[in-house]
Amino acid sequence: MQDWIYIIDLVGTFVFAISGVLTAIDKKFDVVGSIIIGIVTAVGGGSLRDLLIGETPVGWMKDFNYLYVILFAVIVSYTYKNHILKLRKGMFFFDTLGIGLFTILGLQKTLGVGLSIPIALMMGVVTAAFGGVIRDVLTNVIPLIFRREIYATACLAGGIVFIGLEQINQYEIINMIMSMLTVMIIRYVSVKKKWSLNVTIIENKKE
Amino acid sequence: MQDWIYIIDLVGTFVFAISGVLTAIDKKFDVVGSIIIGIVTAVGGGSLRDLLIGETPVGWMKDFNYLYVILFAVIVSYTYKNHILKLRKGMFFFDTLGIGLFTILGLQKTLGVGLSIPIALMMGVVTAAFGGVIRDVLTNVIPLIFRREIYATACLAGGIVFIGLEQINQYEIINMIMSMLTVMIIRYVSVKKKWSLNVTIIENKKE
Amino acid sequence: MQDWIYIIDLVGTFVFAISGVLTAIDKKFDVVGSIIIGIVTAVGGGSLRDLLIGETPVGWMKDFNYLYVILFAVIVSYTYKNHILKLRKGMFFFDTLGIGLFTILGLQKTLGVGLSIPIALMMGVVTAAFGGVIRDVLTNVIPLIFRREIYATACLAGGIVFIGLEQINQYEIINMIMSMLTVMIIRYVSVKKKWSLNVTIIENKKE
Repeated sequence: MQDWIYIIDLVGTFVFAISGVLTAIDKKFDVVGSIIIGIVTAVGGGSLRDLLIGETPVGWMKDFNYLYVILFAVIVSYTYKNHILKLRKGMFFFDTLGIGLFTILGLQKTLGVGLSIPIALMMGVVTAAFGGVIRDVLTNVIPLIFRREIYATACLAGGIVFIGLEQINQYEIINMIMSMLTVMIIRYVSVKKKWSLNVTIIENKKE
Repeated sequence: MQDWIYIIDLVGTFVFAISGVLTAIDKKFDVVGSIIIGIVTAVGGGSLRDLLIGETPVGWMKDFNYLYVILFAVIVSYTYKNHILKLRKGMFFFDTLGIGLFTILGLQKTLGVGLSIPIALMMGVVTAAFGGVIRDVLTNVIPLIFRREIYATACLAGGIVFIGLEQINQYEIINMIMSMLTVMIIRYVSVKKKWSLNVTIIENKKE
Repeated sequence: MQDWIYIIDLVGTFVFAISGVLTAIDKKFDVVGSIIIGIVTAVGGGSLRDLLIGETPVGWMKDFNYLYVILFAVIVSYTYKNHILKLRKGMFFFDTLGIGLFTILGLQKTLGVGLSIPIALMMGVVTAAFGGVIRDVLTNVIPLIFRREIYATACLAGGIVFIGLEQINQYEIINMIMSMLTVMIIRYVSVKKKWSLNVTIIENKKE
């Protein structure tokens, strides 16, 4: 079970890093700048959460796998940048999986240091969404999360579903899946209603 | 006395949260985005101070009243958003009260962890002013504090008055009032000279 | 030896503070705003590093000399602002010295808390480059580091040279000089190839 969470955490990191690198390439940043944006997008949310709840050094610094995954994401981004844009549906799926899991990870870590459920929900949203916020601030764009798509709302709903289910049963893995599905359905419906697919990853192009 | 400080701290949080939500509404952010901006504006300065001086988890996470106050501010902002703009004088008064008190709270907390007076003065300014700075960065505006109004100067002057009086007498409450009055007079005179009232809360509209 | 590092650290702080103040003056910030930008540029990178690796209160808060140096930089900036622009070559030299040393300081501090070499290299870049990034974010410019000049690359290369040499010999001071020279040569060549001299300090003027 823990292994499974860990793997999806790395998948989320991978997808977020790609999202950052592609945004940076699109803004004509050089390679180093793009790598920095990739790193920040991937680990920014979790780092901010760790700072606020007092868990330092921040988590990803203590595990090489995060760096490997980000490095791999950079290589993939540059190698397949044209193809990735065509894979939007796949990216959307993994991105949604990533934010769902990041929300739950943030929640659990915050509860683990003894903070309350409302704070844990907020830190879930921070974990899932603030990597993208920092990416947008650094690339001088009003953060997407504030403008379109109910990104934060989806995270929050997923977190509430998870917390709620945890109170009434012991099947953590089922609760996680239900929570993920909540995030996914909310995002899917919201995107559908606007007749456009994903947004997070290539939105900035249209501005 | 402590109760009194605590209450004004909550009032400051309330006013800052309104300021954030109104700015976000004005920028056409959705409800969730506006709430996030409200929270960040209200607790951002204190959080940054807590991070820098090593007091984590940051303070507001340990006390539900801050969340209640912010929630209430969100409701008030949406319900009375048109009226609030007409209440500018009242807002200006509470906002100034808020920054005066936030300055003193920041000062005292920093001295409390054993740091020096100059650092405490800087952390006073950070507490009072950086919630607004983070709000402006997230909404992609050059922070107001750097462009107009002697916001930071007023905080700093208030802090210096407080520290100075603390050296020569024991009447903390009088020292606080004198310090608040300093902040208020400086802001009032500065605003008067420009023939415009408040600024912090609705300034962005004119850009 | 330690004294020597300390002195160059203060020189780096001084040059970075000037860079911040001049950028702010150029943006028509008032005196207080300019001082804040100067402080942030000078201590922002080291502060972010200290936060991430869990070394709080952040370093500069515990040593008055950093404040004195920044104060002096502010006075110098305002007094000689027209002359400084003509001294670009000298500024470029000290700025490069500063980032070279900040990289090594960041490296060593991070290794000192038991983190790995790749993380230490990243924290070296953060120390040297993120003061400028925060300055650019606050003045609402896409950070220079992402747009032009191989600033981060130079830091990274200098850090790698230092780490590499540390593995094979004991002459720390020589390793530092080699590392500094690496940073300097990379920046010099990169600037030369674009037929323009420094950029960091006065670039924003042209936008």
